[in-house]
Amino acid sequence: MERTIGIGIIGIGRIGRLHAEVLTQRVPGATVRAVSDPFVAETPWLDELGIAVSYASHHELLADPSVDAVYVCSSTDTHAQIVIDAARAGKHLFCEKPIDLDPLRVRDALDAVREAEVLLQVGFNRRFDHNHAQAAEAVREGKVGKVELIKITSRDPAPPPAEYLAVSGGLFLDMMIHDFDMVRFLAASEVVAVHAAGAALVDPTIAATGHIDTAVVTLWLASGAIAVIDNSRRAVYGYDQRTEVFGSDGMVRVENDLSNRVQVFDQYGSHGDKPLYFFLERYGEAFVAQSRAFVDAIVNGGSVPVSGQDGLAPVYIALAASASLTQQRRVEISEVMP
Amino acid sequence: MERTIGIGIIGIGRIGRLHAEVLTQRVPGATVRAVSDPFVAETPWLDELGIAVSYASHHELLADPSVDAVYVCSSTDTHAQIVIDAARAGKHLFCEKPIDLDPLRVRDALDAVREAEVLLQVGFNRRFDHNHAQAAEAVREGKVGKVELIKITSRDPAPPPAEYLAVSGGLFLDMMIHDFDMVRFLAASEVVAVHAAGAALVDPTIAATGHIDTAVVTLWLASGAIAVIDNSRRAVYGYDQRTEVFGSDGMVRVENDLSNRVQVFDQYGSHGDKPLYFFLERYGEAFVAQSRAFVDAIVNGGSVPVSGQDGLAPVYIALAASASLTQQRRVEISEVMP
Amino acid sequence: MERTIGIGIIGIGRIGRLHAEVLTQRVPGATVRAVSDPFVAETPWLDELGIAVSYASHHELLADPSVDAVYVCSSTDTHAQIVIDAARAGKHLFCEKPIDLDPLRVRDALDAVREAEVLLQVGFNRRFDHNHAQAAEAVREGKVGKVELIKITSRDPAPPPAEYLAVSGGLFLDMMIHDFDMVRFLAASEVVAVHAAGAALVDPTIAATGHIDTAVVTLWLASGAIAVIDNSRRAVYGYDQRTEVFGSDGMVRVENDLSNRVQVFDQYGSHGDKPLYFFLERYGEAFVAQSRAFVDAIVNGGSVPVSGQDGLAPVYIALAASASLTQQRRVEISEVMP
Amino acid sequence: MERTIGIGIIGIGRIGRLHAEVLTQRVPGATVRAVSDPFVAETPWLDELGIAVSYASHHELLADPSVDAVYVCSSTDTHAQIVIDAARAGKHLFCEKPIDLDPLRVRDALDAVREAEVLLQVGFNRRFDHNHAQAAEAVREGKVGKVELIKITSRDPAPPPAEYLAVSGGLFLDMMIHDFDMVRFLAASEVVAVHAAGAALVDPTIAATGHIDTAVVTLWLASGAIAVIDNSRRAVYGYDQRTEVFGSDGMVRVENDLSNRVQVFDQYGSHGDKPLYFFLERYGEAFVAQSRAFVDAIVNGGSVPVSGQDGLAPVYIALAASASLTQQRRVEISEVMP
Repeated sequence: MERTIGIGIIGIGRIGRLHAEVLTQRVPGATVRAVSDPFVAETPWLDELGIAVSYASHHELLADPSVDAVYVCSSTDTHAQIVIDAARAGKHLFCEKPIDLDPLRVRDALDAVREAEVLLQVGFNRRFDHNHAQAAEAVREGKVGKVELIKITSRDPAPPPAEYLAVSGGLFLDMMIHDFDMVRFLAASEVVAVHAAGAALVDPTIAATGHIDTAVVTLWLASGAIAVIDNSRRAVYGYDQRTEVFGSDGMVRVENDLSNRVQVFDQYGSHGDKPLYFFLERYGEAFVAQSRAFVDAIVNGGSVPVSGQDGLAPVYIALAASASLTQQRRVEISEVMP
Repeated sequence: MERTIGIGIIGIGRIGRLHAEVLTQRVPGATVRAVSDPFVAETPWLDELGIAVSYASHHELLADPSVDAVYVCSSTDTHAQIVIDAARAGKHLFCEKPIDLDPLRVRDALDAVREAEVLLQVGFNRRFDHNHAQAAEAVREGKVGKVELIKITSRDPAPPPAEYLAVSGGLFLDMMIHDFDMVRFLAASEVVAVHAAGAALVDPTIAATGHIDTAVVTLWLASGAIAVIDNSRRAVYGYDQRTEVFGSDGMVRVENDLSNRVQVFDQYGSHGDKPLYFFLERYGEAFVAQSRAFVDAIVNGGSVPVSGQDGLAPVYIALAASASLTQQRRVEISEVMP
Repeated sequence: MERTIGIGIIGIGRIGRLHAEVLTQRVPGATVRAVSDPFVAETPWLDELGIAVSYASHHELLADPSVDAVYVCSSTDTHAQIVIDAARAGKHLFCEKPIDLDPLRVRDALDAVREAEVLLQVGFNRRFDHNHAQAAEAVREGKVGKVELIKITSRDPAPPPAEYLAVSGGLFLDMMIHDFDMVRFLAASEVVAVHAAGAALVDPTIAATGHIDTAVVTLWLASGAIAVIDNSRRAVYGYDQRTEVFGSDGMVRVENDLSNRVQVFDQYGSHGDKPLYFFLERYGEAFVAQSRAFVDAIVNGGSVPVSGQDGLAPVYIALAASASLTQQRRVEISEVMP
Repeated sequence: MERTIGIGIIGIGRIGRLHAEVLTQRVPGATVRAVSDPFVAETPWLDELGIAVSYASHHELLADPSVDAVYVCSSTDTHAQIVIDAARAGKHLFCEKPIDLDPLRVRDALDAVREAEVLLQVGFNRRFDHNHAQAAEAVREGKVGKVELIKITSRDPAPPPAEYLAVSGGLFLDMMIHDFDMVRFLAASEVVAVHAAGAALVDPTIAATGHIDTAVVTLWLASGAIAVIDNSRRAVYGYDQRTEVFGSDGMVRVENDLSNRVQVFDQYGSHGDKPLYFFLERYGEAFVAQSRAFVDAIVNGGSVPVSGQDGLAPVYIALAASASLTQQRRVEISEVMP
């Protein structure tokens, strides 16, 4: 008979609710037993999902013996401490990215996880996307031969609110961090250096805070390959998520998923629909797949597909990118390691 | 406060289970209260979905006061009688297509529904597909002008088992009936005559039963437009579902959904994945949308989007197509009406 | 040393000029020595192409010993007699399609060609199109297995002038004849019967002459496969030329060539350009390839790729389609053979 | 009556022959009167094109009064001096790119052109490509709004021979120079700084000469936009030529032209053909269009569409890219200006 894993969700904002829905409706073998959030108020969706227990503090949730594993969905600045607390409480961990903006705090958290011998999976959901996963598999199978160039385009439909930027750490840490992970995932090689170009072209509010909203980052990989990522905070045609791996024997390319496959032809030409609007639409199934993989690792004792180290490496890359942007030169990853 | 509709599922084979899952997990406002099936045996999925009540007979289910509406998912030859019984019991009805292979029995069923003043929706799920629905909307909005030609390609990945064919009524009634509905849906006009060409090319077993597995059917519409449908029981590359509406101002075209958007380029050319495998993959979301529309019509008192008449018309077309295949001539729909 | 073939062009309207330009500029080994046309008047393009000799009568041209082969580009009603005259004069022949609207006259012409032992190639240029030729080759190589269904869509950008229709023989003989040839070419099988549906939806002027401008024709092939062709005289989005061959192992499909590969993405979706406008744009290179093949057959003594029989067969199909349209039933090709 | 321009071709290697063929067969109003090349030997194609006069020295050709304009198609190191000689001889000039690898020599050449008041057009043929020209026009029309990001992918099917590299000036000057021009063309803004990453991944022979064969170059534009170009000397799937301009209102994207539009679907998926093989196939029509524009400017007295300044600017960018590659930092264009 199959075991059911009890899950606690820490932080029930947009992303916490998404995980709660996915776990309840789409992940066999998992049950959300409780949530915790200092600001639990009007949340009828908890009832609809049949989640009866809610705590104000994550400490209470960690003390609940019906909870086997927790999802850390609170604000980024609280992740590292909660990871440490949960690991010490013997809970398995799914942590949204990034674990922390400070690599030293990430390492403290990873140390706690290692000591407690619990599982920790980091929320790089794009690895589970039907497109990117298939592309990575094609690369692993040798369909492009030796990897030489990687290109990633990642553009959001609209800029986030200013208050988000104030705590997010900026474009490299809140947005391009996904692409840094994707480079490592597709290349199966570590990043050794970066160069960043950036500008504030989209939104004067963003410019006023000293942040950038448009960037092109070049990455050198240990394998000798070169990667390049471009990001924009605003693509009026929707969420633009494309990747490309080029090598000695060919290229694998991921195009956008579209809202539908209807084409209208008229006297002006052909007209198709836009890409899926944003990450909920585009990566909805990837959220399901990553939670299934996490629950499966707990139930069947395997390793998680996205490790704590996978959570740490992109933070280093982001810090090196920030340094490069300031100093207008190539920066080695080793320069930003403590 | 929102009302919750109690649903009973009559017939829990593949399609009944699909509706049960969809209603339980994806349709707010509906709860599956009971199922009925003469052959309920090992069905652990009932427990997993939290469905506690199962009856051997649909009469027992119809007597259950917690059931507001029923899904008729039993074998086709039982549909008409169950519709009559359920209507008389005051239950709203969702009935899988076709209601019956005999138009007279369909009319009896529709009469019972009318008298009982219950809602009846027929399971032409493709109308709810994100692609076909969008295409129909584009036609309604006038993007192709006056409709002149409609082309529908519909090919299954593999032929059904011989025992299915024995009771299905053959290709026109079990397979192309969806496309007959699609012609009416896209054209917003009635079919007045048909011509059918058919052959048994795919499977000697099918040929041996006297059935066809490949067909091209031409349809004349009241509006003056012409439509053409091609069907095959076996497309090795997967479920091929394409439609095209051509008119005085342009064309709207629906291409297949693909398993993913990965393209591999090598020395031989470019390589993409296949269309989604079969109807569960391709029309999964359409099943959700059609049940949401049905539940919404009950709760909010509107009309259903696919009426009993919409269930009857394609049966006439299928009968005329059969006559045309035998007689090698154009057959008027009026010829097969009782 | 390579021999140069002397060419005479009979009829210098639009299509004659096209052949003259192609032969002069793009076909090594061929020189246009003379033209003939009863209405040669202001034709500066003859000078530009360096063509110094023009005759009023094709008899004069046929008497010119510098002419080894002739292109018959005059009006359709003169083709058969000119073919006979030219064959008797010992000239090789390239004849625009159709050779004649009357199969008996076509057979007389073919008899004359056979007796004179000259080469005759018929102008079904689409066989030389980079797309259709590649599709046919894929079918020959067995990529779709045994052919079961063929679909051809062929739509002109705008209807021809009324005076053209008066002499063209109508849609089946002036337009769909190309598609009848394409069916035979792609299927490598003969057509044994047809069914035609047609309507006058596009142009009241066409309707007033008793002609149709929209048609769907089903064809039964000797191999057991079924084909279907749809034609329209007016596609506002340009020349629509698509083919599809479906079989036991897969499908080969030809999409339209586009004016360019630019896609614009904006808040409304994606926008691409139209297909190439008409046959000069779409089949320009095919005209070059067919003349190269013709000249090559003369110089190197091989057989022509499109024979007189290939010119006759589609005329029979067109006549059967006309009969089917009138009689609303399937018509066997053998019924219209004299 | 229309004037015919007499053309002389200086240098009759591959590119000189291409221009001779294009001018003879496809450019009305131009006649190739003579060629010059120190190594004129077995060149039957001169006869085939009807070019009767050939000189050993460009000085002789420049003295020929029947020559109104010359095409400079000799090796790069001779371009600047020939431009100066031809300008002083009063000949209009079409010069292959680059004019010279040394900006000072380019400026001397441009000075001579200015003094002589002759026209000079530089051979950036891609500006005349049906795709890139259409993309640029869309940008000019404001379809993407304010330009923020430009992405160019340009990959050759196979590396050039080692002896070519010895004189070509390397990847930035012989290959990416086209893309530097394309950035200026698409952005309608000047490049102010660059950063280059490069590697020798493709060919050990190239690596042994100290050259790179793979590169990613970031460019900052005066407008504030950022551009990024990636090059590889070897794409096994053929000549990869894609561009993308992203801005405040959308994106315009150029995909590759394909050899044909045939798609094969089988049990493994869909399969299409490769992009057109190399520049002769892909940019053949662009060569025609650029010569037509050049001849038109001479005949009708307008300005040329690609000026001497357009020839100089990419040389500066290439030099800055080389410096950046060596120094691993952003380099301002002003740093490499003399």
